[in-house]
Amino acid sequence: MIVPVNLGSHSYSIVVEPGALATVGERLRALGVGRRAALVTDAGILRLHGGAVAAGLERAGFTVTVIEVPEGETAKTLAVAEHCWDRLLAAGLDRTSTVLGLGGGAVGDLAGFVAATYMRGMNFVTLPTTILAQVDAAIGGKTAIDHPKAKNLIGAFHQPRLVVVDPAVARTLPDRDFRSGLAEIVKHGIVLERRYFEEVERDAARLLARELDVLDRVIGGSCRLKASVIERDPEEKSELRFALNYGHTIGHALEAATGYARWTHGEAVSLGIVAEARLASRLGLADAATAARQERLLAAVGLPVRAGGLDVEAALTAITHDKKARDGRVPFVLAPRLGEFRVVYDVPPAEVRAVIGELAAATR
Amino acid sequence: MIVPVNLGSHSYSIVVEPGALATVGERLRALGVGRRAALVTDAGILRLHGGAVAAGLERAGFTVTVIEVPEGETAKTLAVAEHCWDRLLAAGLDRTSTVLGLGGGAVGDLAGFVAATYMRGMNFVTLPTTILAQVDAAIGGKTAIDHPKAKNLIGAFHQPRLVVVDPAVARTLPDRDFRSGLAEIVKHGIVLERRYFEEVERDAARLLARELDVLDRVIGGSCRLKASVIERDPEEKSELRFALNYGHTIGHALEAATGYARWTHGEAVSLGIVAEARLASRLGLADAATAARQERLLAAVGLPVRAGGLDVEAALTAITHDKKARDGRVPFVLAPRLGEFRVVYDVPPAEVRAVIGELAAATR
Repeated sequence: MIVPVNLGSHSYSIVVEPGALATVGERLRALGVGRRAALVTDAGILRLHGGAVAAGLERAGFTVTVIEVPEGETAKTLAVAEHCWDRLLAAGLDRTSTVLGLGGGAVGDLAGFVAATYMRGMNFVTLPTTILAQVDAAIGGKTAIDHPKAKNLIGAFHQPRLVVVDPAVARTLPDRDFRSGLAEIVKHGIVLERRYFEEVERDAARLLARELDVLDRVIGGSCRLKASVIERDPEEKSELRFALNYGHTIGHALEAATGYARWTHGEAVSLGIVAEARLASRLGLADAATAARQERLLAAVGLPVRAGGLDVEAALTAITHDKKARDGRVPFVLAPRLGEFRVVYDVPPAEVRAVIGELAAATR
Repeated sequence: MIVPVNLGSHSYSIVVEPGALATVGERLRALGVGRRAALVTDAGILRLHGGAVAAGLERAGFTVTVIEVPEGETAKTLAVAEHCWDRLLAAGLDRTSTVLGLGGGAVGDLAGFVAATYMRGMNFVTLPTTILAQVDAAIGGKTAIDHPKAKNLIGAFHQPRLVVVDPAVARTLPDRDFRSGLAEIVKHGIVLERRYFEEVERDAARLLARELDVLDRVIGGSCRLKASVIERDPEEKSELRFALNYGHTIGHALEAATGYARWTHGEAVSLGIVAEARLASRLGLADAATAARQERLLAAVGLPVRAGGLDVEAALTAITHDKKARDGRVPFVLAPRLGEFRVVYDVPPAEVRAVIGELAAATR
């Protein structure tokens, strides 16, 4: 499946296809970019998938510089970005050259930031290897590194020239990483398309069993939904792109309150969805059945729906530091019905405290 | 005079008006941005103009954080950018807040880069205090810091929300800085508009005498010309924006070959224009009188037109490192006639050597 992302002169394609990683070289050549390329990835991913990508690039006539970066969030520092800029300069890359980010969301965020800022912006290609990155982080041009005091504080919007998603790669993921990625898939259904949510409900067992045709269809569908949002709001200027933040306001706060150690991002988003679904119900925006149905699907795909022992005060404090705050107020994305969302700016703090308290109250 | 820059959702105004610095606060408030602002500037400029700007901002209801940075190019380091990000975070600035860069091109480049990358882009206002910055650097969204091995290597395109140009400020500039700024003014006339070039020819003496009405009209005219280019090519995607690079390919090389110490940027651009005008003539693209006329105006406004003792080989080597290189080839912008330009990709190296040799041969 090829999902077009129509953004005028910044348009690009998302290629979703088993085995697609081996075709990156020829697809990049078709874009008419310069012959120099840098493949940014971590040691583990390099071993698993780097060979196929590099060989394809070289076959297509590219000179490839491999830049190895630390694994996960530790790659997202200014020091690592500096190392990458140094390597690009030493290898003679210019504005017509391409940086390819091969890996999970963190590698993509870092590589994208480096590409966004080298010579005021060079070509960038994302090659996401986790489900989380495939359906979310790799699409839409959000790039960033972390500040010691705030995640993703330093970054830029920089659309990729191409996104290549290989659903077969998702079959090789460790179980926890695999399930974590499903949280963003469920999120897309809830706020963007009821029909897609129902497809995931129906196929939950086959998805968990990693059947390739289901993975291909579900991941592709999620890319399509994310692309539709990006097309209408490429730089988060309207409320639309806030939709993708569903489950994230509370999810991010849970991550921050537990030092990013207890849950993966996807697990925290799952908990955030549970809490924000209940918030909509408490505020009378959605009925209780809608909240329960979201929770049921998250549990069905093996995601946590309770946060026993959570420090509620710490989570509430973390919410006030949300980057989406506007002069101190934090907006919530809520789902009145499946496939719909609404941004609510004046949620009473007591209601937020109540739903986080419910999360923390029981273990499951 | 108000010069509109029409860039769709990124449109903004350039206000050119004596005394305009005192009006920044009310103009910014009219844009509906958040109430927090950071004024980035150096100690000298802060003393001269900081008070008027800060007072106006506070009168308009803004909370202002002043961030003092080193003077000139030394501000354009990653360490200074980091310091700025830290200060913005500590002062609680968010995406709705505004960074104002008050000073010359270097302060604007740094402040713009900080604004472009903080939370993936916040509001940015340029308050240029040199002619160079007023007619060129402050308009168009090019931001950058330097890499130890390459100027402006790390940067981003980030359009300002507002540009406020106070021509009265130009009257307070040291003589050498004042004349240096005129190089970009002459450049705009040569490649963009014959009528403007002739206006500057006619008013050269009054311009040098810093008569306020002439400064206002000539600086405003140059802003208008630069804006017309930015509107048609905001991210240097076409050959059009290359036009603004006239005199800069050789000019940058002269700066690099002399360690950025012998000439100011404007002086180097003046020399670059002399050499590139002669290049057009040698290639049969322009007649000798067109080249001579450019040289005459540059000399008339007190800019250098000879580079006696220049190391020609060092300059030629520096050209090959030009950031505009595409897979190793450096394009030249040449002016076949006043008010017109053409990008030439296959200039024989021997001709480039010849015109640089002519610059170096005589002193004046």
